Amino acid sequence: MKYSNRVTAMQSSPIRKLVPYALDAKARGIKVYHLNIGQPDIKTPKGFFDAVKNFDSNVLEYAVSNGIPELIKALQDYYTTYDMHFDSDDILITNGGSEALLFTMMAICDPGDNLLVPEPFYTNYNGFSQCVNVEVSPITTKAEDGFHLPPKEKICSLINPKTKGILLSNPGNPTGTVYTKEEVSMIAQIAIENNLWIIADEVYREFVYDGLDYTSFGNLKEVEDRVVIIDSVSKRYSACGARIGSLACKNKTLIAQILKLCQGRLCVATLEQIGSVQLYKTPVSYFKEVNEEYKHRRDVLYNELMKVDGVVCEKPTGAFYIVAKLPVENAEDFVIWMLKEFSKDNETVMACPAEGFYSTPGLGRNEIRLAYILNESDLYKAATLLKEGLEQYLLLPANSKVSPVEA
Amino acid sequence: MKYSNRVTAMQSSPIRKLVPYALDAKARGIKVYHLNIGQPDIKTPKGFFDAVKNFDSNVLEYAVSNGIPELIKALQDYYTTYDMHFDSDDILITNGGSEALLFTMMAICDPGDNLLVPEPFYTNYNGFSQCVNVEVSPITTKAEDGFHLPPKEKICSLINPKTKGILLSNPGNPTGTVYTKEEVSMIAQIAIENNLWIIADEVYREFVYDGLDYTSFGNLKEVEDRVVIIDSVSKRYSACGARIGSLACKNKTLIAQILKLCQGRLCVATLEQIGSVQLYKTPVSYFKEVNEEYKHRRDVLYNELMKVDGVVCEKPTGAFYIVAKLPVENAEDFVIWMLKEFSKDNETVMACPAEGFYSTPGLGRNEIRLAYILNESDLYKAATLLKEGLEQYLLLPANSKVSPVEA
Repeated sequence: MKYSNRVTAMQSSPIRKLVPYALDAKARGIKVYHLNIGQPDIKTPKGFFDAVKNFDSNVLEYAVSNGIPELIKALQDYYTTYDMHFDSDDILITNGGSEALLFTMMAICDPGDNLLVPEPFYTNYNGFSQCVNVEVSPITTKAEDGFHLPPKEKICSLINPKTKGILLSNPGNPTGTVYTKEEVSMIAQIAIENNLWIIADEVYREFVYDGLDYTSFGNLKEVEDRVVIIDSVSKRYSACGARIGSLACKNKTLIAQILKLCQGRLCVATLEQIGSVQLYKTPVSYFKEVNEEYKHRRDVLYNELMKVDGVVCEKPTGAFYIVAKLPVENAEDFVIWMLKEFSKDNETVMACPAEGFYSTPGLGRNEIRLAYILNESDLYKAATLLKEGLEQYLLLPANSKVSPVEA
Repeated sequence: MKYSNRVTAMQSSPIRKLVPYALDAKARGIKVYHLNIGQPDIKTPKGFFDAVKNFDSNVLEYAVSNGIPELIKALQDYYTTYDMHFDSDDILITNGGSEALLFTMMAICDPGDNLLVPEPFYTNYNGFSQCVNVEVSPITTKAEDGFHLPPKEKICSLINPKTKGILLSNPGNPTGTVYTKEEVSMIAQIAIENNLWIIADEVYREFVYDGLDYTSFGNLKEVEDRVVIIDSVSKRYSACGARIGSLACKNKTLIAQILKLCQGRLCVATLEQIGSVQLYKTPVSYFKEVNEEYKHRRDVLYNELMKVDGVVCEKPTGAFYIVAKLPVENAEDFVIWMLKEFSKDNETVMACPAEGFYSTPGLGRNEIRLAYILNESDLYKAATLLKEGLEQYLLLPANSKVSPVEA
């Protein structure tokens, strides 16, 4: 039998492929601090569990394909607080932000079409696009620039007749970069001038630090017919296991197209939708606390990293990730070394090699992504271990030869 | 902006598109018996809800991408009772049977490839295939033959170099047909001789009546490396809203390919998996009761239908659907007429036109699908209304002109 090229060509998750090394370290009695995955340890708001536990029907029936009205209403109310005003039929509930992204790609791209995506990007963008034969055209950004966007001409030069849209996450995963108002406006202008869709993955909307302003693509009137806002409860409410996402778009024709895909998979889990209604009613004070907590965590991790000569990284201002360029040749080797060879007091750290977040071959080879999702004391330990590990690694004969500039 | 051809070409759900007529009837105070959708009224086993309510972590974390080990173990044990023996890494948990089907199609077909599918078929097969640019090559079956398969030569004549597999549901949705051991063996032989995959949608495995033997594709040793078994808790345990499905396959390479797709969407809802572990532990006595109940329902509906001259339908032996050929020109018109014009004591019935279950243009135009998912007294009322409605409709000047033979 044959296997499809589109799936054969997909890479295994760079976030998960080194897991066997971590399991092996644990089997040797070593505690591994996981900075490689974005699984927060913050408590899920209790209202979610209460609502699920209070479900009192005897039959767990299909929900409607577009999502239960109570959850759509809760999302409308949530968006209103950001001055975004969606009709109830502008919103579709999906199996996580993942399905929202996949369905949107399918609805706007035929096989062979492409989307512009700033790289490094959320690695699954690559997976989704490959499995539906959509190409990613990378807009390369750099650690030295804090992963901000290149000038308009550079981006426009990447557009060809097969380009159907621009996909970007803001705040960025894996970069933690928050685009400025000017960057958001520039993308909007490019989309208008080139008749492109904008797929705005804003699942980290509340994770913006240092009092920075945040501009959503949903706030730009001039592109409201071409913007799809991707959302999810996973990170915002620490409810990754609920798999409740959504998309919102004022273009009714696009919604009608995507609704057909929603009908094809019948519905999203009924109980998880009922629980998520309560999540969207979480008071703003929750975000303030969580936000403050993450800001501290970022500072702890960033400050330790910066103590190592040759590490290149602008302090990120959003989400809960850092991408750092290391003075090594191959960051994956370093990550594996940390799991196989390094430990201090029987503890070590797992980072995520960043190469899988790039589609341009060779880029990101000396970079890692770190998620600051542990409590402050664990994170401090992890950050110190990472710093010490990196320092030791750089002293090894084979690894210390790459200068920061060459790297 | 542009919309993709692949999604634009998808039909709206034929099961759901006439819903506005039903809503209008209800607004006029008419009770509508829904025989158009497969949403059972049977109670979901209580163990599901208990397990969900007993979840006691504060954080709703991601589950592993392939599915939680407890659920995979429960599935292994369930399959063992059918003499199918899967390793734990032969099984992947999915967002309903729908995702299992979509992922399998993606993993075995590139755009332009095709799958042989007996028609009439579950309408969403068409939707899934179109959105990933896979073509359905229909193996036409007929009401007069009880929708059993045509001879081997006929099926083989449909195979071309782009054919990658055979997809079939057994027992069949919408036909209720249970394939004989000989039919299952014939498909296996065709797959071997032509190097094809077999995608066996067996979500109605327990819904087999009249003491009939059931042969699963999972029981044929000679094709174990090319069979993918699609499963779901939806119908078996009346848990449609859980969205827990799975696929099982002894071909480790295929599983590795599909696992990449599972990793892309991260995981299936954690709580629903925990609840579903208990579903797969439901005692066999549950199925016996449920099975007996459905058999009665089938008989009630079938017997009423058969009272109308010109209705063509072999008594189905599985699932909970009947496809009947009516002595009318256009079954959709009849379904709409039942909702718009007909009522008795302020009650009417909604059926589902069957044309959307065919991919050959024109076929199924005079057929309806009925789901016998109401309790016996409601179903009896519904069946009587349907019979009376049909008799009245046939007396209308414009509708009585099609003889059963022409239809």
